[in-house]
Amino acid sequence: MPAQPRPNIQSLSAYTPGEQPAGQPVTKLNTNESPYPVSPKALQALHETAAESLRVYPPPLAQPFRAAAAEVHAVRPEQVIATNGGDELLRLLITCYCTPGVPAGPGGLGVTVPSYSLYPVLAAIHDTPVCAVRRDDAFGLPEDLAERWNDAGCTLAMLVNPHAPTGRCETLDTLRKLADAFNGLLMIDEAYVDFAEQDALPLVREGLCNVLLLRSMSKGYGLAGLRFGYGIGPAHVLAALDKARDSYNTDIVSQRVATAALRDQAYARGVWQKVIEARSGLTAALLERGFAVLDSQTNFVLATPPEAERTAASADKPRAEAIYRALKDRRILVRYFDHPRLDDKLRITVGTPEQNALLLDALDELL
Amino acid sequence: MPAQPRPNIQSLSAYTPGEQPAGQPVTKLNTNESPYPVSPKALQALHETAAESLRVYPPPLAQPFRAAAAEVHAVRPEQVIATNGGDELLRLLITCYCTPGVPAGPGGLGVTVPSYSLYPVLAAIHDTPVCAVRRDDAFGLPEDLAERWNDAGCTLAMLVNPHAPTGRCETLDTLRKLADAFNGLLMIDEAYVDFAEQDALPLVREGLCNVLLLRSMSKGYGLAGLRFGYGIGPAHVLAALDKARDSYNTDIVSQRVATAALRDQAYARGVWQKVIEARSGLTAALLERGFAVLDSQTNFVLATPPEAERTAASADKPRAEAIYRALKDRRILVRYFDHPRLDDKLRITVGTPEQNALLLDALDELL
Repeated sequence: MPAQPRPNIQSLSAYTPGEQPAGQPVTKLNTNESPYPVSPKALQALHETAAESLRVYPPPLAQPFRAAAAEVHAVRPEQVIATNGGDELLRLLITCYCTPGVPAGPGGLGVTVPSYSLYPVLAAIHDTPVCAVRRDDAFGLPEDLAERWNDAGCTLAMLVNPHAPTGRCETLDTLRKLADAFNGLLMIDEAYVDFAEQDALPLVREGLCNVLLLRSMSKGYGLAGLRFGYGIGPAHVLAALDKARDSYNTDIVSQRVATAALRDQAYARGVWQKVIEARSGLTAALLERGFAVLDSQTNFVLATPPEAERTAASADKPRAEAIYRALKDRRILVRYFDHPRLDDKLRITVGTPEQNALLLDALDELL
Repeated sequence: MPAQPRPNIQSLSAYTPGEQPAGQPVTKLNTNESPYPVSPKALQALHETAAESLRVYPPPLAQPFRAAAAEVHAVRPEQVIATNGGDELLRLLITCYCTPGVPAGPGGLGVTVPSYSLYPVLAAIHDTPVCAVRRDDAFGLPEDLAERWNDAGCTLAMLVNPHAPTGRCETLDTLRKLADAFNGLLMIDEAYVDFAEQDALPLVREGLCNVLLLRSMSKGYGLAGLRFGYGIGPAHVLAALDKARDSYNTDIVSQRVATAALRDQAYARGVWQKVIEARSGLTAALLERGFAVLDSQTNFVLATPPEAERTAASADKPRAEAIYRALKDRRILVRYFDHPRLDDKLRITVGTPEQNALLLDALDELL
């Protein structure tokens, strides 16, 4: 009898990342990567890395990155933690703030549905209960969200804002009220905030003691391949996370490249502006073609195919899935979710104007 | 009242990494880094990384690295897992195989003492009990080690071999008997195996279903800054770890550099040979000076200062600590452990012949 993993790991359905095709080129509008490359200054930092800096252990606290992020976001360095992708920050929060080994009861994780599907997977790995509250019909937050998390005994909640996969963004006032009413730690996942009109930084600067923001270099900085994320929040929370993270959780190359990319705000802002303009163009073009498109503050749009197309669907498959497959045959990848409230919709990453035109041409052929 | 982390995190004493001095140059013989740079081919892989490969998510399974490791070690690719440093592999093993939230009882972690001090810290983060068995007077394994781990209900054990901080290496036969007698999963931490006369790969190739090896690129490949480790073991164990790891746990740059470094075995073996020769020289020179030095199969030696020097120690401080401090004043770093069985010893990383000569000159001045 070989040694067996814990029962919760044995029964776990692992998170499924979006398709990352190898081989032949595709128009890749499925995993919300930036359509533009990283800042040339960051690439230079990569190429200037010497063997000597690879030879020795990296700064364990990633101090140069923390200093840069503190400067860019007007917070203190002890309010920043660097992580191996945003996913590590999510895991660390669950490790530190949720109770393991309990099927139900206090110490669990609060989420909303639909949302980033990794949250409940991380909770299952930790063996902690999840309180999943349904978003309203417009994918907004229910009035009693904090109350329901509190009633379930949640000590941590994860809220992606701007929201994935709809692109919707809550107001600062809504977020502040939620944080005030929630008894636990509220993590606001701002992976897409670079493309939004506002962020939740004022809540951290105001000194709210139970709000932590997650930021990612994957979307806004063209660095999905590098795995670098960070948290901004109260120093007492970051001190706990620092105890629980792997001692050298970020490597020297990532630290250097991420620091250079973050410091080049002028370049990053130029990219975000181009994506925002392309998003307007793509949204208008989809609306013209009869799609319903939610107003997005991210680098993707959630689009429902035209009614006529949906009623023409075969009995067993939603029309959105058929379009997803037909686009894939044409070497264009978008995201389709086999989820009750999303199975008539496509999530389309905003590409360059040229990529978006390719997609629209393909849709014109299909519909 | 701000949200509080779990009690075990609140009371945790975090792992303390070795000193990583910034600023002025030092002779750094304290954290077992390679004294030689990474293979030029690996550096070339770093410098050839294009913005386009940073822009998109990396291969989530690090398939190119797994294929390279399988080839180098004559195992199958599904017997290899790539991790963000060896430390991530340790954490994943505890996540998957130990029971959290129990102060004592079944599901805990077996270790030996002294050993790598991170093991019990990771267990404390997971809130799982530790059964720490004292090594014998020669720092060897007690006859009843497996029995004691079994009696304590350990489902996982971590054994660093060659051993840190003594450099001692157990025979394959001893390891096989231990694995056979232990009811749980035995992780053999081979972070230092590149400098040893044998490794435990035959146990994996023989198909032992409860043995997993940890390998690191930090020591033998000049890549401590990169954070890249890997596991070699039964496919059923790796399948569990794959479910629990962060989806994109290793980044594209690390994957490329580590793959190139591993594939350049000729270069790596040249480095190991130089380190082994320098180790012989350093050991002989320390013995000449009256130190007691354990026979080492790693890239460090554990040395006890001459008896005369020890009896000359002040009442409150062991002589080893005084030497450590005096060397530090001379900008030479070695490692001193404030631990009952080690506080009369220094752990000295084998440097280049030039670095070792600097150390010996300083000792001649001091003693």
